[in-house]
Amino acid sequence: MIKPQSSHKRPIFSAKEYADAIISGDRSMLGRAITLVESTRKDHRVLAQQILELCMPYTGNSVRIGITGVPGVGKSTFIESFGQYVCGQNKKLAVLAIDPSSEQGLGSILGDKTRMEMLSRSEHAFIRPSPTAGSLGGVARKTRESILLCEAAGYEVILIETVGVGQSETTVHSMVDFFLLLMLAGAGDDLQGIKRGIMEMADTIAITKADGDNVQKSTTAIADYKSALHLLPPKNNGWIAKVTSCSSFENKGIDEIWSIIESYKNHCIVNKHFFEKRKEQAQYWLNESIQDELSQLFYSNPKIQKELKHLTQDVIQGKTSPFLASNKLIDLFKKS
Amino acid sequence: MIKPQSSHKRPIFSAKEYADAIISGDRSMLGRAITLVESTRKDHRVLAQQILELCMPYTGNSVRIGITGVPGVGKSTFIESFGQYVCGQNKKLAVLAIDPSSEQGLGSILGDKTRMEMLSRSEHAFIRPSPTAGSLGGVARKTRESILLCEAAGYEVILIETVGVGQSETTVHSMVDFFLLLMLAGAGDDLQGIKRGIMEMADTIAITKADGDNVQKSTTAIADYKSALHLLPPKNNGWIAKVTSCSSFENKGIDEIWSIIESYKNHCIVNKHFFEKRKEQAQYWLNESIQDELSQLFYSNPKIQKELKHLTQDVIQGKTSPFLASNKLIDLFKKS
Repeated sequence: MIKPQSSHKRPIFSAKEYADAIISGDRSMLGRAITLVESTRKDHRVLAQQILELCMPYTGNSVRIGITGVPGVGKSTFIESFGQYVCGQNKKLAVLAIDPSSEQGLGSILGDKTRMEMLSRSEHAFIRPSPTAGSLGGVARKTRESILLCEAAGYEVILIETVGVGQSETTVHSMVDFFLLLMLAGAGDDLQGIKRGIMEMADTIAITKADGDNVQKSTTAIADYKSALHLLPPKNNGWIAKVTSCSSFENKGIDEIWSIIESYKNHCIVNKHFFEKRKEQAQYWLNESIQDELSQLFYSNPKIQKELKHLTQDVIQGKTSPFLASNKLIDLFKKS
Repeated sequence: MIKPQSSHKRPIFSAKEYADAIISGDRSMLGRAITLVESTRKDHRVLAQQILELCMPYTGNSVRIGITGVPGVGKSTFIESFGQYVCGQNKKLAVLAIDPSSEQGLGSILGDKTRMEMLSRSEHAFIRPSPTAGSLGGVARKTRESILLCEAAGYEVILIETVGVGQSETTVHSMVDFFLLLMLAGAGDDLQGIKRGIMEMADTIAITKADGDNVQKSTTAIADYKSALHLLPPKNNGWIAKVTSCSSFENKGIDEIWSIIESYKNHCIVNKHFFEKRKEQAQYWLNESIQDELSQLFYSNPKIQKELKHLTQDVIQGKTSPFLASNKLIDLFKKS
């Protein structure tokens, strides 16, 4: 790590110093750059963009894996086992999270690194808590930029964890290569609880906690999910979603999940869908980002704010239509 | 109807002439105003907005009903029976449609009025095909403006039909007071086919074609859907979704659906949710409309178009991040 010039003051580094350190694999500087990415301060944002620009040529060389599942499915313990396995293969692994519901300073997922105590001690692993709350769009941007920085720092496997609460899965799905859905084996009414959309996104479903009394139930669940997946339309990359089980406790099935991911990557690289999908995702994020910034430009305009307040009242009271009001606001925006 | 000044040329009316005619219930002028609403010509759009502005004080006095169901469920025949029943109660009924998948000139739903031959002959009924294709946002705006014009023309019951294809239901749901889901009775695997999100939106589910051999199956289906609905969280307006059946062929159960809608309206007016929901919807449409117009302003700018082309390539090739590219485009947009 580059030494701070003073122990009393937080040192200031240039974008180039940050980028060089990140590219050389400096974990501490990577963490600080992500803090800049997450900051709401304008000067931090500008610096973060400069760092990112310098890091861009070193990005892309990883497999990005989204992991989701309802609370209680055992995501943290799975990531702990899976992460250790991956690090044991001499690969560098970064764990990021998207949790838009988090309103605490450190985020509720991964806020406590001790939940992944063993993994966090590995020199091959970089674990980062979810950015603090904001709009899902804002959190998504931060996570996506963090992925790029981790890649520049040489992390070859990036896990992005999210809670199973709907919109955030779609967001994670749009920034990963492979989407892993963790499910619990349970009674026959399992399928009732699954959001169809999430099952459709999954490249693999893994039944967790397949140990002890649960082994039989897991076998049944695998069959159930296989027949449920069978009803879904095939993916356009030709991949057929796999269903498997694992036990983080007994450390079983973890290696199989990793080999599924490797065969998925090979499959998609061979049929050219791997980079095609990344291109589509990049295009998607360009559009999303334009939308976000346009909105911010519009809604932060003081004249618009004032007029919007009046017109919203008129719209709510039925005095004017939403479309007429919007026309007036856009005209005002054009003039100012 | 106001007489055209010349039989050779399409007459030109002022916004006030249109509005006065609509408010007096002139069906032909209503149809022509909706054509202006649907037009892509700028002068038509301007005139449409002026007409709408004059009509606004006469809007809102209706019950807006969304109707959806998969192809084959019998939407047209249901609307034919239901519409005739409503007209028989001496109420004026308008039938609109949202079908973003339609790419034919006249729209695929309701394109053929003869599908509702009896209803279309009623002097109380106004039937309008789906606007021609465009973005769902564009079609939504046109339909929502058409609802307002129909209300100004004194239509007290507005049906908005949509195909059961996902996104369009959400759009229709966001512009109606009451959402009716039509379902077919079938085998035990009924529930597999339902999109959960759509079931959650439904204020009532009606099993269609409950006649002849289907009567027993419909009874079973009612029980199934009731238990499925039971699993969903309660609506915040305190309404418990009903499940019923009907036969358009035998004209059974149609009156019951109308009385469910009336009791729903009473329920929501008493607990003040009726107009609260409309206010929320108006606010929602204001935001949506602003987003649409901002996008149009941005993407139609020639400088942006040129730069976007280059930057999109850079983003796709991983030379720059989507967020950096978007920053550059927004800066350019601000300057021009």
